[in-house]
Parts: sequence; C-alpha cells; structure tokens
Amino acid sequence: MKLTSITEFIASKRDGQEHSADEIAAFTAAIVSGEAPDYQISAWLMAAYLRGLSRTEVVALARAMAASGYQYPLGHFGPHAVDKHSTGGVGDKTSLVVVPLCAAAGAVVPKMAGRGLGFTGGTIDKLESIPGFQVQLELPRFEEVVTNVGCAIVAQSPALAPADGILYALRDATATVESPGLIATSVMSKKLALGCPAIVIDLKVGRGSFCQDLEQARELGALLAAIAQANGRRLTIVYSSMEQPLGSAVGHALEVLEAAEVLRGAGPEDLREHCLAVASEMILAAQLVPDLPAAKALCRQVLQEGSGFAKFLSMIGAQGGDAEAVAQGRLSLAQHVRPVLTSDEGYVLSVDARQVARALQPLGATRQKKGDPIDLTVGVKLLAKQGEWVKAGEPLALVYANTERAALEAELILRSAYRLSSEACAAAGHSVLCVERF
Amino acid sequence: MKLTSITEFIASKRDGQEHSADEIAAFTAAIVSGEAPDYQISAWLMAAYLRGLSRTEVVALARAMAASGYQYPLGHFGPHAVDKHSTGGVGDKTSLVVVPLCAAAGAVVPKMAGRGLGFTGGTIDKLESIPGFQVQLELPRFEEVVTNVGCAIVAQSPALAPADGILYALRDATATVESPGLIATSVMSKKLALGCPAIVIDLKVGRGSFCQDLEQARELGALLAAIAQANGRRLTIVYSSMEQPLGSAVGHALEVLEAAEVLRGAGPEDLREHCLAVASEMILAAQLVPDLPAAKALCRQVLQEGSGFAKFLSMIGAQGGDAEAVAQGRLSLAQHVRPVLTSDEGYVLSVDARQVARALQPLGATRQKKGDPIDLTVGVKLLAKQGEWVKAGEPLALVYANTERAALEAELILRSAYRLSSEACAAAGHSVLCVERF
Repeated sequence: MKLTSITEFIASKRDGQEHSADEIAAFTAAIVSGEAPDYQISAWLMAAYLRGLSRTEVVALARAMAASGYQYPLGHFGPHAVDKHSTGGVGDKTSLVVVPLCAAAGAVVPKMAGRGLGFTGGTIDKLESIPGFQVQLELPRFEEVVTNVGCAIVAQSPALAPADGILYALRDATATVESPGLIATSVMSKKLALGCPAIVIDLKVGRGSFCQDLEQARELGALLAAIAQANGRRLTIVYSSMEQPLGSAVGHALEVLEAAEVLRGAGPEDLREHCLAVASEMILAAQLVPDLPAAKALCRQVLQEGSGFAKFLSMIGAQGGDAEAVAQGRLSLAQHVRPVLTSDEGYVLSVDARQVARALQPLGATRQKKGDPIDLTVGVKLLAKQGEWVKAGEPLALVYANTERAALEAELILRSAYRLSSEACAAAGHSVLCVERF
Repeated sequence: MKLTSITEFIASKRDGQEHSADEIAAFTAAIVSGEAPDYQISAWLMAAYLRGLSRTEVVALARAMAASGYQYPLGHFGPHAVDKHSTGGVGDKTSLVVVPLCAAAGAVVPKMAGRGLGFTGGTIDKLESIPGFQVQLELPRFEEVVTNVGCAIVAQSPALAPADGILYALRDATATVESPGLIATSVMSKKLALGCPAIVIDLKVGRGSFCQDLEQARELGALLAAIAQANGRRLTIVYSSMEQPLGSAVGHALEVLEAAEVLRGAGPEDLREHCLAVASEMILAAQLVPDLPAAKALCRQVLQEGSGFAKFLSMIGAQGGDAEAVAQGRLSLAQHVRPVLTSDEGYVLSVDARQVARALQPLGATRQKKGDPIDLTVGVKLLAKQGEWVKAGEPLALVYANTERAALEAELILRSAYRLSSEACAAAGHSVLCVERF
C-alpha cells in the first residue's frame, strides 16, 4: 500500500465511508510492515473512533489483525480447548481461579493475558508477585505446559496478532482506546490467532470498567459475536457488574492470595460465585457436559475436592514459580498496614470501584503508561462491602503501603470511595447480569 | 506538557470540547520541542478536523504557532509593508506580477511563498525555472534584498512559525488539509511572524481551488479576519473565481513568461485585470493612497510605464537569477509541443481547472508528496477560454511535453477539460467576486 493510498484510506474513514475487506487487509499489512507510519495509523484511529466502524469492517479488521502474525490452526489445542477474556476491572482476579479450575474439570485452557494499564489490573502483573513465575514463554514451551498441565497463563505473545500490539500502543497515547470497534478487534484478533473453538468473554459493566451501562456493553458484545460467528468460533458473553471491586483484595500479591483462597473453597462469596458462573460457562462452551446445570455441578465438585487448587500449584510449578509459597500463603506484602476507620456508622450504600483503583495510584500499584514499574506488594483489602453494617470507629478497609505517606494518601481516597446510609440497603447480589451464547 | 496531558488534550478535542489558549500554547510548544510525538499530533489533527476549531481556538493557535519561532516585530519592514497570500489555484501566477508591481508603486513587499502540492502550483517552483534564481535566502540576506529592491520572493523560512512546518507535513499525510481552522492558522501564523501591518489574501473559489463555493470561502475568510483583528493587522480578502485557470499558461517556466508579459502591459486580459485588482487592494492596504480609485490609477500607471517589469528584473537580479533571460523571454521549455485539436465547433462553455491540473500529472509538472522532483519546462497553454468560439480542427490548447507519450496522455485529459456548446455563452467576466476589508 503506497503512502498516497494510505492517505486516501484515512480520508475515506474521515468522510464516514465504509472500507472494503481488501482495503482493510492492505492497511493492516502496511501497519505490520512499517509502510504505514505511526502518524498515519493514529489519524485513522481517530477517524475510526469518531466515525465508527461497521460490523462488516470490524469482522474484516479482526481477521486481518489475526492474519498479521502466527496463527494456530482452529482446533490446535483440541476439541475441549476454551479461551477466556475479561474486559478488565478492579480486583478482577477471575482468570487466576477459573483457568486452573476448568483445567481440573477436563478443559484445555491456553491463556494469554495482559498487563494492567490505567485503572484496571492485569493478570500477568499479578502472577509476577509469585517468586520465580515466568510469564514470558516461547510458543513451544507454552504449548508444552498446556499439554502437560492442561493450562498455562502467559503474557500475550508478540508473534500472535502483531498488528494489535502496534495499534494498542498508539490507541493508548492518542485517546482512542474506548471505541467498541477497536476494542472488539483488539480482543478477538488475539483469540482468533490462538485457535480455540470456544471463547468466553467476561464483559464488565459499571463504574470500574470501560462500559458504563449494559446498553453500551451489548453494543460491544454484538461486535464480538459477529467476529466469532464469521470465524466459526463458539462465543459466550457473561455480562457482569463492576460497580464495587470483585472480592476483597485489590493489588497484585493480595489478589493472588485471595484467588488461592477461593480455589481452596474459601474466600469472599461474591468472587467465588462469580468464578463459578464464569467457569461453568467455560465448561459448557468446551462441550465437556451437555448442559449448564451439569457444568455448574462439575465446577462446584472440582472446587470442593481442591483439584482446582492442585492444578493452580502445578501450573505455577511448570512456569517456574514457587508453588510452595502460594500453598503456604507466603508472598511479599508491604510493611505498613493502615486501617481506614469510619467515624460514622451505617450501611455501606456503595464502594466506588473507580475510586478504589485511584487509591492504588499513590501506593505505586498502577501504571500510567506501558512499561512503568509497579509495586506488587501494595494494595487494599476491603473489609466492608455493599449492604454491610459498619460501626463508628471500625475499619472499612486495610491499606498495604511501603511508606507512611502513601498509606495516608490512599486512606483519604479510599474513605471517599465509601458511601454510608442510615437506611438498610441490599447487598450487590450476583455479579452476573446476563449471559449470551452464540 | 507531559505525555498523559497530551493524551487528555487529544481526548478533549475528540469529545468536542473547546481548548483554552493556555492549553493550545502548551501543545504548540510540545509540537516544536518534540515532546509531542507525530502520532499524537496526527490524532489531534483528525479530531480537530472532524470536531472543528472555534474562532477563539483558531486565534489562540495562530498566535501560538507564530510564537513557535522567530518573529519580526510588527512594523519591522516599515509602515507601507504589505504581505500577500493566495490560497492556491491553477495557473495562478498573480504573486509574480503583483509583488514587483506594488514595490514599483512604493510599497514594501517581503514575500515568503510555498511550493506546489497536489493540483495547485507553487510560486517558488515557478521562480526556480529562472536560471540561477535563489529561493532559499537566509533572513539577513532576505531583508537586504527587500531593503534594496523593495521586494523579494523567497521560500518560507523554517525559522518562522516552525510549528506550521511540522503540522503541514502531517496534515498532508493524514488527510487533514482541508479544514478551515487548520488552513487559517497555517496561513496566518506565518503572516503574523513576518510582521507586516497589512495583509491581502487572494481567496480562490471554485473547481480549481480548495473552496468549492463562496459560502465555504467566507467561513475561512471569517477565521482569517478574526486572527488578523486579534493581532492588530489590517486584512483585505479578495474572493476570486477559480473555475477555469487564470490566464493562458499553466506550468512553471510558461507561467513566469506569461507574468513577464503582463508586467509589460500585455498578456491575457483576465490575468492582467485580476493582478490589477489584487495590486490595487495591496496599495490601498499599504496606506500609500487615500482610496481605491487612487490605488487603481497608480497601479495602471506603473504597468503602463513598465516600472513594475523593471522592478521584477531587479528582484530577479538581486536574488541571483538571470534577468536577461526573462527580459528576452528565453526560459527552457519542453521540446514536444502538441496541439489539442477539437473535432467539433462551438462556444467554450467551461474549461475545468481541476482537469487542466490533472493534465499536468503525466507531464511531470506536479508533485504527489513533498520533495518529489518536478519538471519546470512542461505545461499547457490554453488557446481558447470560456465564451470563445472555436472552429472544428482548431487547437484548443498546446501541450509542452518532454516525451510523445506524456504529450498524448495530457492531450486526452485536456480534451475532457473542455465543454463546448452550440449556444453562445458569456465569457467568465471579472475574476473578483467580492472584497472584504478588516
């Protein structure tokens, strides 16, 4: 694709026209070859953000992005392989639980995951709080772990859908992240390249996610479904609430420890129920059972038997991590533990997930841009969640910090995340809002 | 300005918000310092193109761009200094005529001009067809020529409004050229930096220009006026028609020769009248005469006396060019001269300027991107223009080409530029549509 053709391609989206699949394929190839310089890609991204991408364009772009690098053939990981993706939230350690749980139930789960950016945490960062855990595996080693253990969680391989890596970095710097078409193609291009016949998306809705309401989430869901259907993949979308953080722990090592608790049949109820819901959909999508009740029963059994936890430890060991440390709950945590005390009494009306995420900033747990170093030992443990009664002088949460100053800053922000009410209010209830299966 | 602040700046324009003058100044400084990488600038350009820039933003941006480099103080070139700019057309050699003509009438005309891009020709390219002519002068030498001769025409100095150079190159590659706010700031930032108290803009309207109709042109005019007024400059806008090319010659050396003819009191009437109209506005704006009739009388007198032509030759000599060659009409022209014959007879209904410009492409006279080499010896001479009667077998135009093949290609395109009619139709009339003085 010549420079002038790229300019025409940009102009066509600028004027609200629809690209053909061939044009999209040529542009995507130019992105990866370097023919399309960053500044042209960015101008197109902004035009696509503001003018939108049609369903046809989204399907073509996802396919072109998947074809921009190495592609596993569909079915490479077997008929029961299932992939899982979360659109990102606060305290969302679901993958750490459901990947080994589903593997223990007989599914094959080759999972590539991302790092945290902005207010959302990243599975890969969390796993790095385990001493020795290797998140960067070459593809042959990745496949070996998946074959031997039944699952693996590694950082997204740059060999798969390299166009996405280039586009994502630019979107982050050019305020073009929150576009349904661009989010859908980013997610699905990597899924298509991994070759799993079944994909379960945990699509977060609410204050602590990119989708502020269910309508917006369904718009994104429709695009994800269109891409899956056009490429012969089974897709399940679990729409789940992200108004308050999921579970109690927010922060890297703290979340790994909480995920381990859930895998041992304990841990916060909202997190456990959410993980069971997502895992059941994965087991159903992987065609290991005939229906959802059977999938739920199988997941509960695996949790009760503790075989999910055993699988988690096997995976950690296979990826070079200190499984013993996780088994004994020994991960490095920050020194200063400061309670966030309430001066009032009342019912917890809400715990604003976005504010909780903001409290992690002074602690050094989040990154503003790719590559920023982060502290894996710090975080927050929420002691009271929506609907609970708190007495004056009681702690609402604990802050884990490495300096007194950071602890104080985080405490102030956390206090503002809580809304109390003198009237009783209901607990948040089940996190899952609805499920769509395609 | 930090990277995250730039992302927020982009997001704010993306969402249709108005930037403050301070934000625009910080962003412009970041453009020139390199803090804002190309890809962020491009995303902002597309957002600005699609969301638009308010009059307040345009004024702030023009000022920030002018302040991004060296700025002559207002009045540096004296009270009678006047700057002139054309928004670009086909066969538009007006600057070559009016700059020396106004200097001969007593004005000081320090003119920085551009190169051709796409379908529009560039004054600087045209002057380079004169052997030895130096278009790149250092600022001290530029001032010396202006002081000694009364005028100079040089390539835009990169020391003035460097932010414009960066923005312009990116706009060209990202399909964001044709935005009123971005055009207005590009034009006026350079004018503000040059410090002339009076500025005359020849704003082209029609097929052979960026503005397709007068309404669109007036929108641009209002922005130019707002910038001038906010910076204490007198501004005159001459709205003129660019449906058919101006004069007969289109092509570099051919246009210089035609401009010389006009300065000697001959040449095509439409071009001569247009140049007199623009020059009169420049003389009035330069406050050399009390009113427009006096300005017109002075310009006609200068033309008749031939002192404008003498000034042209002095300027060419001062800038190292072969004045003798121009005086004798000896510039290199292409070898193959091919007539474009008509098989029909009729009145010329229209000569599509955009099509005539397209005919220059196979000849090698236009560039698709900055830096492309171009042929200064080729071009087109229109023998029949709107309203004229042509007989079957007569030539409509002459093509000057360096290969037979190019001549043939240009001939075919030129033929399609002409529309003939059996009914008599009026000549195009005066090129000037209206004038606004601020």
